[in-house]
Amino acid sequence: MNALETLGARAKQASRTLMTASTETKNRALAAAAQALLEAQDAILAENAKDLAKAREVGMASSMLDRLALDPGRLAGMAKGLLEVAELPDPVGVTLSEVVRPNGLRVRKVSVPMGVIAVIFEARPNVSADAAALCLKSGNAVILRGGKEAVRSNAAIVNAMRGAVERAGLPADCICLVEDTSRESARALMRLNDYVDVLIPRGGAGLIHTVVANATVPVIETGVGNCHIYIDRDADLAMAADIVYNAKTSRVSVCNAAESLLVHEAVAEAALPAVYKRLAEKQVTLYGDARAQEILPGIEKADESDWGREYLDYKMSVKVVGSLDEAVAHIAKYSSGHSDCIVTENAAAAERFLNEVDSAAVYWNASTRFTDGGCFGFGAEIGISTQKLHARGPLGLPQLTSFKYQIYGDGQVR
Amino acid sequence: MNALETLGARAKQASRTLMTASTETKNRALAAAAQALLEAQDAILAENAKDLAKAREVGMASSMLDRLALDPGRLAGMAKGLLEVAELPDPVGVTLSEVVRPNGLRVRKVSVPMGVIAVIFEARPNVSADAAALCLKSGNAVILRGGKEAVRSNAAIVNAMRGAVERAGLPADCICLVEDTSRESARALMRLNDYVDVLIPRGGAGLIHTVVANATVPVIETGVGNCHIYIDRDADLAMAADIVYNAKTSRVSVCNAAESLLVHEAVAEAALPAVYKRLAEKQVTLYGDARAQEILPGIEKADESDWGREYLDYKMSVKVVGSLDEAVAHIAKYSSGHSDCIVTENAAAAERFLNEVDSAAVYWNASTRFTDGGCFGFGAEIGISTQKLHARGPLGLPQLTSFKYQIYGDGQVR
Repeated sequence: MNALETLGARAKQASRTLMTASTETKNRALAAAAQALLEAQDAILAENAKDLAKAREVGMASSMLDRLALDPGRLAGMAKGLLEVAELPDPVGVTLSEVVRPNGLRVRKVSVPMGVIAVIFEARPNVSADAAALCLKSGNAVILRGGKEAVRSNAAIVNAMRGAVERAGLPADCICLVEDTSRESARALMRLNDYVDVLIPRGGAGLIHTVVANATVPVIETGVGNCHIYIDRDADLAMAADIVYNAKTSRVSVCNAAESLLVHEAVAEAALPAVYKRLAEKQVTLYGDARAQEILPGIEKADESDWGREYLDYKMSVKVVGSLDEAVAHIAKYSSGHSDCIVTENAAAAERFLNEVDSAAVYWNASTRFTDGGCFGFGAEIGISTQKLHARGPLGLPQLTSFKYQIYGDGQVR
Repeated sequence: MNALETLGARAKQASRTLMTASTETKNRALAAAAQALLEAQDAILAENAKDLAKAREVGMASSMLDRLALDPGRLAGMAKGLLEVAELPDPVGVTLSEVVRPNGLRVRKVSVPMGVIAVIFEARPNVSADAAALCLKSGNAVILRGGKEAVRSNAAIVNAMRGAVERAGLPADCICLVEDTSRESARALMRLNDYVDVLIPRGGAGLIHTVVANATVPVIETGVGNCHIYIDRDADLAMAADIVYNAKTSRVSVCNAAESLLVHEAVAEAALPAVYKRLAEKQVTLYGDARAQEILPGIEKADESDWGREYLDYKMSVKVVGSLDEAVAHIAKYSSGHSDCIVTENAAAAERFLNEVDSAAVYWNASTRFTDGGCFGFGAEIGISTQKLHARGPLGLPQLTSFKYQIYGDGQVR
């Protein structure tokens, strides 16, 4: 066995204990881990400082440095997050259905942990604590594989949490960290079928595509959001401008930010200037089709690649469409299936949009920024799924479980 | 676009219509397809005869020829199967949950079709009708890719069904067949991410492994069953012999047949001869560990590879274990996660087994042969999932759906 296989085997072994651990034990471990993060503050910040020094050395952009940096406030936030996960209901052991068959067999469907969840993530070290907490509460061992930029920070965080988990009476290997941050180790983790039950990549489009192309373990794709707002001919244009402004500019770097604006031609001449005025407050650059450029002569020209683009920036593509059908067809072609919105006062148009747009979250008259575990009332989440298998939208605790059938007989044969 | 991409695009396009089709329309299409299979009987049987002639020419084994062969009775059975699927409840459009958030947003979780389901299967041509019916009822377009042995039979069946679907007012491309049965076409289908939402391989371990190793589309693994029966120290030995006999011999070629027997050492000397006597009625060959060979001197010696083997034959591995823990650990190591059973009168032992054995179906005092959509009360199924993502156990209609969130607002921004 190589080092990664050994790690996988240890995580699998730990998962067998964690699988049947009581809610109380898991919550005790989470509380202990929160405490441990605070107690290890100096050590964690010292390791984070080394990561930051190295990142500055190699010229990391300041926005990336900000994601990487920890301070006492952020660490306290991470610890608080662990306690919040402890407060959430235990998703394991829930009877999902139960029937007694004519032959007397009792067939019970019950929620169970996945087993071992691998999480590949990028620069933010807080993900290691968040992901470990959600996996632990849902009875899953976790194999964390963070970016090389945060390797020391992640090691210090995981080290503190492992000790706490062990003191709470669970195997330390419930939380494992792959410290080898080479590309090879990531690829090997994607193919560790003997030990990994599901892999969740958390990061940008590049990471997601690499995982989809290379993984042989089951994957939940997350996070690529090319989200659309469609302003219908029957839209309240003031509401439309508010929603576009919020969905585009309230936080540009997140997957539920809007990236593309579609406007019905009947209202384009009124709607586009109103929207553009709001977006100009934040210096948003628009990339428009020919009709949008006629109405807003100052904007850039969109090319084909703009329609599929997740800018994650103060940029937005804009297109004038002739009908609801054209909007739906455009979204079918270019959306990443994350979140799309119609602004309209016409209920029939809204229902069509809600039914025909095939995305995880489809909105009528609200900002796409609400696609989030907290906003949906699920509590913390480990990401937003954009695939249709298993889970779609915010991945909260119930989405980190599977189920099994327990069948009670008294000697039945077939 | 190559031919397969064109097919994929057509299926995707059809899926958009089918996605919002009414239950009535889908049922009408299923009834029309059942009728069409009967009306096309002569054409289908003629094409099947050509497949059979070619199969005999290349020396196909008689058990395989039997799987391939159609006759008026089997065709009537297929038609009846379509009508039975029409009778099942529509799994699409079910409100799974609905909450109103403090800000007034109404978040509704509703079941929706997957989109396009690809099914790769082997010799049995009836799979094409069964799979198409389940996909159609669940609102999914299907891309069927059967084995080369059945290519003419499948084409005739699909041709009849496509015409019927179209007459019922749905696009014929709701049911697509890949007529290129080369290995390359199968591999390309496994990577058709732009058009395939989920791939379900139906076949033996070789096919499943090829799919898992090569697919980039989401996959539901099915069907490999290395199922165990554990006879506990507190077992009713007569019941144990009945269950082992049934699970091993009632149909050896299926995935829910038992392949491995574990016996507690405290009862091995009484249990093994009793079980062996029953199995000998069907000339079952046992492959035992050293202790089993001492008790049953006539049996074969098991080697390491026997423990993981899915014989699909009148063969069974047998091992004497020292404890329930050892049985659970052995199953953890070798089970394919399909179906495993404990025979015991001890409720505490049974509960431990039901909770600690991590398989899709875990039985207490009943034959593993019950892992089946019909036996569980789900109606028809498209296979038995042995993975934990999305669906586990029998894949009935609800397992062929995903869900989406429809969010109703009145201008909410974040």
